[in-house]
Amino acid sequence: MDDIDFAVLGTGGIGRRALDYSREKGGLTPVAACDRNGVAVDHDGLDVDELLAATEGNIASETRPDASGENDPRADGGTGAVKQSGEMKGVAASAQADPTETPIDDVIAESAAIDAVLIALPNLEHDFIPRVGERFADAGYEGVLVDVLKRSRVIDILDDREATFEESGITFVCGAGATPGFLTGAAALAAQSFVEVEAVEIWWGVGLKSGYEDNRGTVREDIAHLDGYDIETARNLTDEEIEEIVEEHDGRIEFTDMEHADDVLLERAGICDAEDVTVGGILDLRSDEKPTTTTVRVTGRTFDGERGTNTFRLDDDTSMEANVNGPALGYLKAGVRRNRAGEYGVFGPADLMPGF
Amino acid sequence: MDDIDFAVLGTGGIGRRALDYSREKGGLTPVAACDRNGVAVDHDGLDVDELLAATEGNIASETRPDASGENDPRADGGTGAVKQSGEMKGVAASAQADPTETPIDDVIAESAAIDAVLIALPNLEHDFIPRVGERFADAGYEGVLVDVLKRSRVIDILDDREATFEESGITFVCGAGATPGFLTGAAALAAQSFVEVEAVEIWWGVGLKSGYEDNRGTVREDIAHLDGYDIETARNLTDEEIEEIVEEHDGRIEFTDMEHADDVLLERAGICDAEDVTVGGILDLRSDEKPTTTTVRVTGRTFDGERGTNTFRLDDDTSMEANVNGPALGYLKAGVRRNRAGEYGVFGPADLMPGF
Repeated sequence: MDDIDFAVLGTGGIGRRALDYSREKGGLTPVAACDRNGVAVDHDGLDVDELLAATEGNIASETRPDASGENDPRADGGTGAVKQSGEMKGVAASAQADPTETPIDDVIAESAAIDAVLIALPNLEHDFIPRVGERFADAGYEGVLVDVLKRSRVIDILDDREATFEESGITFVCGAGATPGFLTGAAALAAQSFVEVEAVEIWWGVGLKSGYEDNRGTVREDIAHLDGYDIETARNLTDEEIEEIVEEHDGRIEFTDMEHADDVLLERAGICDAEDVTVGGILDLRSDEKPTTTTVRVTGRTFDGERGTNTFRLDDDTSMEANVNGPALGYLKAGVRRNRAGEYGVFGPADLMPGF
Repeated sequence: MDDIDFAVLGTGGIGRRALDYSREKGGLTPVAACDRNGVAVDHDGLDVDELLAATEGNIASETRPDASGENDPRADGGTGAVKQSGEMKGVAASAQADPTETPIDDVIAESAAIDAVLIALPNLEHDFIPRVGERFADAGYEGVLVDVLKRSRVIDILDDREATFEESGITFVCGAGATPGFLTGAAALAAQSFVEVEAVEIWWGVGLKSGYEDNRGTVREDIAHLDGYDIETARNLTDEEIEEIVEEHDGRIEFTDMEHADDVLLERAGICDAEDVTVGGILDLRSDEKPTTTTVRVTGRTFDGERGTNTFRLDDDTSMEANVNGPALGYLKAGVRRNRAGEYGVFGPADLMPGF
């Protein structure tokens, strides 16, 4: 495969790691990155070390919208409120970057020379990432958009815009993180023993002690799945309130029946009904050890009348970060291959085998 | 996806099961099937029940070549020497079929209306299946060819012909059974946690008591991997000699360091070096229970410096037949999608996520 020049929207945990991780993947050159205050573009390849140093304090969790639409700070640069107040920090602090009030538009302006864009923005509003995709389509972008969104209902919003993406020449790869993403792909593959899939059980363990600072956005999104919380209430929690919730659970929060898009992505690929998919897991914020082993179990009926359960297990020593960012870049590579072959529209993990 | 009209070359165990299995998969219509003596074509869909009844005695293992090239009986219809001698049996015995001496050519003659062809012919000569592919290319076939070949060296022979397939408009999906195939795909997916893959260990268990009659070709191919045997000697074994070998091992044969194409298919996809892949397993011919659990273990290094082993396990209650034929048809579907998008050439399992 030819080399891929890619951009990252958002330099929170996932965006920064994508830059870092891409140095260890063959054929991937980061050429643009932005957060709400700055944009860095170098079509010969960004200096990742310098950019990572400049964005070290970026924390998605502290971004609080003050309005929707164009005035929402996230609508034009998204993740990365600035921890260190009063100074020029984040992408704008990089020697490679310019300060901007329109970071996404600035990346779109360069997108004729960008093969793929990883959207690593927070998505507490369901239609935010679909709207970002629409802006690329409105500008006539021909390339790949990849997101690591989690929520089932976002997929429908993307599907509603499929014609827009197709007309532009966009291959939109959605739900390309760990779950949905890596584990959805594993479920799709494990289903191959069966003619009828009865149940897909996704169960994850994440130990996030030292990684907590970098992953507050993820923790906030997870809290929205707890009884008594929803997306609205989780979005409006202060950091102190989040700490209190963590404290109440002694740092170890168990989630069941999460609204993760694995369900609609597997249904969309014809593998099973969305209601046959369950996603849950345990998040431990006081340890880097996983509190439970991340496992996908697919139970079904074979053509010769047997029932069985195929299993996919991630080693406890592989971090959440490795299992989100590896697949995200793998699916990005697979998306570029589809895009170059002229296949446009919305693709889920079960439609693509990620590239290595 | 639109409906797929497909043909099966060979009606031994794999070919017959593909016909059977396709009835439980959505969107697959078998429209042609052949063995060495007969060809059945119905573009509205074959009567699978009738064809399965007619071909019930087909056993690949008894086909012994008397010459190479065009005079090799397998070169024109392949699998399915006729168990019941002296009578018109096999495909030719079907009310839907015609007797023929040129079954593959007869299928090629109909191929303008065939989306995909599953090549379920024995492949004791390495270049036999590549040569079959070439004959389709010579006839200007535009569609998908799928094989379930095992041997590493066949992939190179196919790759040598890639330009021929591309010019014709053929998407050749190779090594699309269980191993290589299903388990190769699992290894490619499990690798996504890692930036460097150190080892891929594929270990299979097959219990083949009641399925022995239908799978003699597979047993013969496996015996060629034992110390003291090679492809030549295995091909020339009589059924009695095979029984003796089975007897010597008390019906339970363990294989190590098998030349399965998982290695070159994973190297080809950039996942690891071929030499880092090992394939072995246990074949039990006296029991239908698997003697060991089929497992793929992928060990690697993560971007954040950890080492780990991800694991994919097939339930012992999923049969070898389910795990070969499900993926074969799944990869066939994925191949058709690539073909319709205009992607031609040679594709391995790690390049494709099989469809369901």
